[in-house]
Amino acid sequence: MAAATNFYSIVAGVGAGTGRSVALKFAKTYPVALLARNPANYESIVKEIKAAGGQAIGISTDVSSESSVKNAFAEIQKEFKGKKLAAAIYNVGGRFVRKPFLEMTSEEYEAGYEANGKGFFLFAQATLPLLLESVPDSTHPPSLIITGATASLRGSANMSSFASGKFALRATGQSLAREFGPKGVHIAHAIIDGVIDIPRTKEWPVNEGVDDGKISSDAIADSYWYLHTQPRSHFTQELDVRPYVEKF
Amino acid sequence: MAAATNFYSIVAGVGAGTGRSVALKFAKTYPVALLARNPANYESIVKEIKAAGGQAIGISTDVSSESSVKNAFAEIQKEFKGKKLAAAIYNVGGRFVRKPFLEMTSEEYEAGYEANGKGFFLFAQATLPLLLESVPDSTHPPSLIITGATASLRGSANMSSFASGKFALRATGQSLAREFGPKGVHIAHAIIDGVIDIPRTKEWPVNEGVDDGKISSDAIADSYWYLHTQPRSHFTQELDVRPYVEKF
Amino acid sequence: MAAATNFYSIVAGVGAGTGRSVALKFAKTYPVALLARNPANYESIVKEIKAAGGQAIGISTDVSSESSVKNAFAEIQKEFKGKKLAAAIYNVGGRFVRKPFLEMTSEEYEAGYEANGKGFFLFAQATLPLLLESVPDSTHPPSLIITGATASLRGSANMSSFASGKFALRATGQSLAREFGPKGVHIAHAIIDGVIDIPRTKEWPVNEGVDDGKISSDAIADSYWYLHTQPRSHFTQELDVRPYVEKF
Amino acid sequence: MAAATNFYSIVAGVGAGTGRSVALKFAKTYPVALLARNPANYESIVKEIKAAGGQAIGISTDVSSESSVKNAFAEIQKEFKGKKLAAAIYNVGGRFVRKPFLEMTSEEYEAGYEANGKGFFLFAQATLPLLLESVPDSTHPPSLIITGATASLRGSANMSSFASGKFALRATGQSLAREFGPKGVHIAHAIIDGVIDIPRTKEWPVNEGVDDGKISSDAIADSYWYLHTQPRSHFTQELDVRPYVEKF
Repeated sequence: MAAATNFYSIVAGVGAGTGRSVALKFAKTYPVALLARNPANYESIVKEIKAAGGQAIGISTDVSSESSVKNAFAEIQKEFKGKKLAAAIYNVGGRFVRKPFLEMTSEEYEAGYEANGKGFFLFAQATLPLLLESVPDSTHPPSLIITGATASLRGSANMSSFASGKFALRATGQSLAREFGPKGVHIAHAIIDGVIDIPRTKEWPVNEGVDDGKISSDAIADSYWYLHTQPRSHFTQELDVRPYVEKF
Repeated sequence: MAAATNFYSIVAGVGAGTGRSVALKFAKTYPVALLARNPANYESIVKEIKAAGGQAIGISTDVSSESSVKNAFAEIQKEFKGKKLAAAIYNVGGRFVRKPFLEMTSEEYEAGYEANGKGFFLFAQATLPLLLESVPDSTHPPSLIITGATASLRGSANMSSFASGKFALRATGQSLAREFGPKGVHIAHAIIDGVIDIPRTKEWPVNEGVDDGKISSDAIADSYWYLHTQPRSHFTQELDVRPYVEKF
Repeated sequence: MAAATNFYSIVAGVGAGTGRSVALKFAKTYPVALLARNPANYESIVKEIKAAGGQAIGISTDVSSESSVKNAFAEIQKEFKGKKLAAAIYNVGGRFVRKPFLEMTSEEYEAGYEANGKGFFLFAQATLPLLLESVPDSTHPPSLIITGATASLRGSANMSSFASGKFALRATGQSLAREFGPKGVHIAHAIIDGVIDIPRTKEWPVNEGVDDGKISSDAIADSYWYLHTQPRSHFTQELDVRPYVEKF
Repeated sequence: MAAATNFYSIVAGVGAGTGRSVALKFAKTYPVALLARNPANYESIVKEIKAAGGQAIGISTDVSSESSVKNAFAEIQKEFKGKKLAAAIYNVGGRFVRKPFLEMTSEEYEAGYEANGKGFFLFAQATLPLLLESVPDSTHPPSLIITGATASLRGSANMSSFASGKFALRATGQSLAREFGPKGVHIAHAIIDGVIDIPRTKEWPVNEGVDDGKISSDAIADSYWYLHTQPRSHFTQELDVRPYVEKF
């Protein structure tokens, strides 16, 4: 594991699903910093990566807090001193509120934006200068990869909190792709349109009766790695992903 | 002016352009409450409406402040006691920030969401209960009409602040259309794709050399009135608008 | 009826629904030529318009046949000699094929394109030169208005014939809007997203239990008239339309 | 080359660019049948594949002719008797017509649909039964991969021929994805948004002054292979691709 040791990667928003799979995947090539509010969300993944011969650190971070993000990046740069950032993945779910609009508190509505709007702003401001520095000598174009959802494209009933955050995230991602793409940084947005197959969703009655009716998080990790390794003459800005049995 | 006197309307975000034209248009049928942070933005419009025999009040309101919105609606309901809400227009521009992403402060980035995300949330929570009450006996389906922009559909370079706010606004509008449409409230979103012809933009070098290369705000007002008068068997959720010479 | 007698209009694709309502609406201002393959589809509408004091002719036309379209326009220009074309509406449904892809014949698949691709091409080539001539002196910008459908935006299972035709129609409409809009001709596309309330659909189990769960064709006619009367500083290229109870 | 010899692949529309690169890529795993109207377009590629130890045949085919497609598939099945179809790629460009709408002949307009509408219909009807047969035992989900373009999403001025064809292609692809996805066949659509770097485009003044301002066709081939190898719990229906310096 981890040959290209002049570079490292960051995954914000790790837990039992996409974040863990992505971290394990990128750790095969790069040391990886894992950000999550709750250390329980990254501790076992750090162990798993180390056990496989990789390098990883976990940092408790509240991505929607300017000072918390600042501290996290100070720690990352101390830890990975002398290395450059090859890839940053923003996979923050945030608090998911699904309820009738008139029953929603202002705080609940804003939760979507806190995680996916403001949080991404802070993360992108911290990572883009580092990614720009890597343009001249990274093997693959330095990449900022963003996790979107069905709600990135469609505001469904009772989903105004999550959808407003995911729409804001997509808007910002497009804006960054148009500003930083020509500078050699790859900004990609993945629309994860379906339930991810993780312990917590095992019993969810989604696409029942088929073995593979939920999205494999390892397959998502493969797609993020594929996006990262695209040459800059061929950048994908957006792709969608769903199980074969999903209605869409 | 103002025959259907059992009903009133609200326009949030008035100034020299769309807000003024929409207020004048709706004031031909309904008394109208005008919301703007700065009284200078509504005072002359209130006079204009009264001079034409209509009824209008202006209320200084910061739409992104929960208490300010609460006060405004208390005043509206006192002022229009006994009347029901027929139409609410959300036309808040907010602070417009266009600059390279890495030069943007967190406060500048959030300005887009403050005006178009959180502000609309507060406005919609205040107006929807009133609009629902009007469903049984209003002449036209009670309407919540939202002003969008090019940036509602596309995140351009240097536009992450405005685009993230306008995307969030569109997401919320779609969510409300799907929740409140079936209850008889018409939620419509207009994408204003071009520069509006107002005093401030007179000298802007946009679509030069033609007389009508900027959007007439009176025509926008006509389109909002047309949307308001659609029967509920025929609701438009979204329409775009641009000058005939506009590149798109 | 019919004051502005220096101008006339054309509606291609008339029957019991949208076409009839649009023809009646436009006949209040302009003489109207009605095109349909089967005379039974326009004969009663011609009578209805005349009985109301309007002017109308019907011409049996196969819009996907070059010679049939040529004959129709020769007849129209003879009939309305000295008048100019103010508005042309393309409302051709064509043969609707909904079936599993592997059971579809080549002829069935192409039926969608014949009506909505090739037919519109021929209609647009015949009407655009006439609409361009009207630019200098028509009251409203000369208009070419196109009827789209849910299938203009989405290719559902078993709908490849209709969707490929409606997608092709939308593509061509966008292309024309960008070429002829700057020349003063208004090209507008309406996405009719729901079942229209006509005799044939009365018993269809769609949005049951509500009085107005299907789209009023008279309301569609109002929207087409509204589109036609927009000034050129404020052109709508696309709007959607659906019943308030429609899932979308 | 070519380990999984129980399966083969088909590439329709080969020439100097994407088709050749895709054929070479898939030939590393599967024997491949190359379809093009003009044998000159596949002959050298067949040689190249054979020289590398792969297996390939070329068949002169007019994809918009029912009988020509029928003959091609009869030959393919004879040639690859006992093997099953793993992947079919539809990469037909067709005749590209870009001209003012009123100067276009009916035949020129229809050229877009002939290649991308009707041609794809015939290709999909021929390949889908074969792909369905492969579902139970292919290593990767059997795949039908479609080449789209900027014009798949947008009808620009003077582009009605190409755009109507590419829109029709996308509509049909979506329809097939929704019908055959749940049966285990992967239908994917790639939007190639930019000029491809091939001998013919070498001198085109596109994104000048940068080395990699045109899309690498080998990178497109990698993306098609990546799409083919996605597991069915994680199907991408659509992705876009453009050079990092491309305006979009």
